[in-house]
Amino acid sequence: MDARHTIERKRDGVALPPEEWEAFIRAYTAGDVADYQMSAFLMACFIRGLDRDELSALTNAMLHSGRCLELAHLGKPRIDKHSTGGVGDKISLILAPLISSLGVVVPMMSGRGLGHTGGTLDKLEAIPGMRTRLSLAEAVAELETIGCALIGQTEEIAPADKRMYALRDATATVESIPLISASIMSKKLAEGLTGLVLDVKRGSGAFLPELEAELGLARTMVSLGADHGCPTVALLTAMDRPLGRACGNALETEEAIHALKGEGPPDVMEITYALGAEMLLLAGAVTDGWEARRRMEAAIGQGHAAAQFQRIIEAQGGNPAVVDDPALLPQAAECEFFAAPRSGFVAQIEPRAIGFGITQLGGGRTRVADTVDPSVGFVITTNPGDWVEAGEPLATIFARDARGVSDGRVCLAGAITIADAAEPPLPLISHRVSASGVERYPSE
Amino acid sequence: MDARHTIERKRDGVALPPEEWEAFIRAYTAGDVADYQMSAFLMACFIRGLDRDELSALTNAMLHSGRCLELAHLGKPRIDKHSTGGVGDKISLILAPLISSLGVVVPMMSGRGLGHTGGTLDKLEAIPGMRTRLSLAEAVAELETIGCALIGQTEEIAPADKRMYALRDATATVESIPLISASIMSKKLAEGLTGLVLDVKRGSGAFLPELEAELGLARTMVSLGADHGCPTVALLTAMDRPLGRACGNALETEEAIHALKGEGPPDVMEITYALGAEMLLLAGAVTDGWEARRRMEAAIGQGHAAAQFQRIIEAQGGNPAVVDDPALLPQAAECEFFAAPRSGFVAQIEPRAIGFGITQLGGGRTRVADTVDPSVGFVITTNPGDWVEAGEPLATIFARDARGVSDGRVCLAGAITIADAAEPPLPLISHRVSASGVERYPSE
Repeated sequence: MDARHTIERKRDGVALPPEEWEAFIRAYTAGDVADYQMSAFLMACFIRGLDRDELSALTNAMLHSGRCLELAHLGKPRIDKHSTGGVGDKISLILAPLISSLGVVVPMMSGRGLGHTGGTLDKLEAIPGMRTRLSLAEAVAELETIGCALIGQTEEIAPADKRMYALRDATATVESIPLISASIMSKKLAEGLTGLVLDVKRGSGAFLPELEAELGLARTMVSLGADHGCPTVALLTAMDRPLGRACGNALETEEAIHALKGEGPPDVMEITYALGAEMLLLAGAVTDGWEARRRMEAAIGQGHAAAQFQRIIEAQGGNPAVVDDPALLPQAAECEFFAAPRSGFVAQIEPRAIGFGITQLGGGRTRVADTVDPSVGFVITTNPGDWVEAGEPLATIFARDARGVSDGRVCLAGAITIADAAEPPLPLISHRVSASGVERYPSE
Repeated sequence: MDARHTIERKRDGVALPPEEWEAFIRAYTAGDVADYQMSAFLMACFIRGLDRDELSALTNAMLHSGRCLELAHLGKPRIDKHSTGGVGDKISLILAPLISSLGVVVPMMSGRGLGHTGGTLDKLEAIPGMRTRLSLAEAVAELETIGCALIGQTEEIAPADKRMYALRDATATVESIPLISASIMSKKLAEGLTGLVLDVKRGSGAFLPELEAELGLARTMVSLGADHGCPTVALLTAMDRPLGRACGNALETEEAIHALKGEGPPDVMEITYALGAEMLLLAGAVTDGWEARRRMEAAIGQGHAAAQFQRIIEAQGGNPAVVDDPALLPQAAECEFFAAPRSGFVAQIEPRAIGFGITQLGGGRTRVADTVDPSVGFVITTNPGDWVEAGEPLATIFARDARGVSDGRVCLAGAITIADAAEPPLPLISHRVSASGVERYPSE
C-alpha cells in the first residue's frame, strides 16, 4: 500500500472503506507508515471528520492492532466503567471492588494522569507495593480467581492507539469526537466485555467543555459499543468542580477507601451508586435500579466491598492493610489549612486550576515520562454555593515543603472564587445515553 | 513556544501573524518542532489555506531559515528562470549560458528529477566531470568571474524548505498552491535576484494539470516576488506533450547544446526566446521584445552562448569539449527505432507516461536517494497532430540492454496514441502573468 494515497483521500474528504482503514492501521503498527505520515493523516481526520462506518472501521482496526482479553470461559458477565477524565475522580477505585464483590467480573484497564486530569493508575500506585503493570496472562489469572483486575494499558493491547494518542497529544489533534471515541473504545473493546458504562464529564474541567460536544461524544461511543456487540450506557456528570473532597493521588485513594465503607462524600457516593447500577443492570445481575442500589449498599455495609479491595491489592503486590489503616498511605510532610480570604458565596472551584496546582506540587505530569509524588494535593471541604465566613478553613494543602504550601495557597486563591452571589452548579448527573437515545437524568 | 498552540490555530482556520510563522519555522529549523508536528501543521495549511500575508510571512521565514547569496557588489542585474517541472524541459541549460553571455548575471539553483519530471541537475551531471554541489562561496566566485553558476540547493539555502518538501512528498501535501509557492519562492529569493522569470507548466504532464490552478499558482508567485522586492513574470506553457524531442538526461543535454547553436527543435527555441526576452526585459538590458530576440539570436549565431556554456562547464569541473562534440556525453548501449503501429493522426504523446518510462529505463528516480543512468531515454520525432503511416519511425529508444528496449517499446506504445482524428494540442505559450495581471500570450 502507498500511505500517501490514503492520506490524500482523507485529505480530500473521501469516506474510506473498511479495508483501507484496516490496511493503513496495520501498516502503521508494522512500521511501514511513519509517525509523520500518521500525524498528517490524523490532522486530515480531525478536520474532515469520520462517518459512522469509518469510525467503526478505525476502532476495529485499532482494536485488532494488538491482543484482546479472552474471558468467555469465565461464564460471567464482564463489565467495565470508563471516565473521560477529570479532577478528584476516584470512582473507578470504588466501583471495581464494589461491583466485582457482587459477582460481576470487572476487567478494568486504566490510564495515568496527564495535563490537569488525574489517572486511576497513579492513585492505585499510591498504595505501597501495588503493581499495575500486569501482563495479559497475569490479568486473566487475577480475573479468574478474584473477578477483578486493575491494570494499565499493556504493550499488547491496542498498540496502535498508544502511539496514535502520543502523536495526537503533540499535534493538536486530541479534541476530535471520532478520534477520542476510537481511542477509548478500541481499548475497552479489547477487554472482552459484555457491557460498558461510560462517565462522560461536562463543564469547565472536562476534556470537551461544551455540553453539545459531550453529548455527541457519549452518543458516538454508545453507538460504537453497540456496533461491536458491547452494550454501552453513558451518564453525563458534572466536572465544573472537582468530584468529592480529595484531589491528589494518595488523598483520593484514602477517600475511595472511605467510600467503600459507606463514608465517602455525598457526590462521590451518588455517582458511585448511579454508575454501579448501570453496571449491574448491563450484567443482568439486577432487574431495576432500586435493587441495584440495595445490593450495593449491602456490599458496602457488610464489608464485602472493602474486603474485595483488599484481595485485589494483595493480588497485585500491594499492602492490603491500607484499607483498614489509610494512614499507611504516603503522607505529605507539610499540611496546612487554606482560609477564606473574605466572606461570601463560593461561586466557583475551578477544576483545571486545581488539577494544574496538583501538578505544580509534584503530584501530576506535564509529560508522560514524569514521575509523581503520591502524597501531595488538596482536600477541599467547601462546595460551590456554600456561604463561607472570612477566615473559615475551605481546604487543606498537602505539600512536600513550605514552598509547596505557598504554591498551593496561590493555586487555591485562584481556583476558589468567593463572591456576593453564586450561580447554581451543574447537576451532578444530567443525562443518560443508551442505545435507545438520550434522556434527562434521573429519568422521572 | 508551544508548537501545539500554533498547529491548533491553523487547524481551526485562524490567520497566523507574521511573528508566529517566523517562530514556528525557526523552531522547526532548530529541531524544537518535530517532523510529525510539522506534517500535521502542513496538512492543516493544505486544507485551510493561507492568505496573502500568511504566505508572505511563511516564505520569508523559510527564506531566512538559511543563508542568502550576497551579490549586490556585482553591480549587475541578476535574473533567474524557474520551471514548475515537466518532461523534456531542458530550457534552463540553454537560457543560463545564453542570458549570462549577454551581461546579465544568472545565479541558477536547480533541483533533481523526481516522479515523472526530470531535473536540471541530473541533465548537467550527464556532462563528464560536471559538479553541481558547489558551496555558496564557490558559487559567488563563479558568478563574479563568469556571471553564471548552475548549482543545487545547498544545505545553507532555505534548509527548512528542504525538510518540509521531503515531508510534503511523503504526506500528500504537495499540491497546495501556497505551499508550492512558498517552497519555490523561498529558494529563488535566497539567490539575491533583481528579477525572476517563471515557466509555469499546464496540461496533463504538469504538476497541477488544471489551468485554473496553474494560473492561481502563477499569480501567487508573481505577487510573492513583488512583495519581496523581486519583480517576477510568469509564462504559462504547454506540458500536454514533452517539450522538444529529447527526453532523458544526456539526450536532453545534447539537445540543449544544439539549441545553443540555433539548431534546437522549434518549440524549444520558441520557449527559450520567450523566457529569455522576459529575463532581458527584467534586467533592463533591452527595451522591447524584438530587441531581446535580436540580441539572443546574435549571441547564438556568433557562438557566444555556446562559448559561455563551455566556460560554465569548465568552471564546474566538467569537460567543455562536449559542446563541440556531444558524442562525448554518455551513450546508451542499445538504440532502436519505435515504429507507428498503425496509420493515423498522433492524437497524444502523454508526458507522464514518457517520464515514468525514463524512470523504468533507469534514467529517473522514485526516491530521492536513487541514482540515475544519464544515457537512457527517448528521442521522439513526431508531434501531436502529425499524420503518420504504419511502420514509420516515431521515436528512438535509448536503453542499457534488450530488456530496456522492450520496456521502452511498451512505454511508447502506451504513451503515443494514434487515432483517426486529433484534437489540437495546447498553445505552446498561452498566458503571461505579471504584476499588472494576466494577459493572453502573445499579447497582441
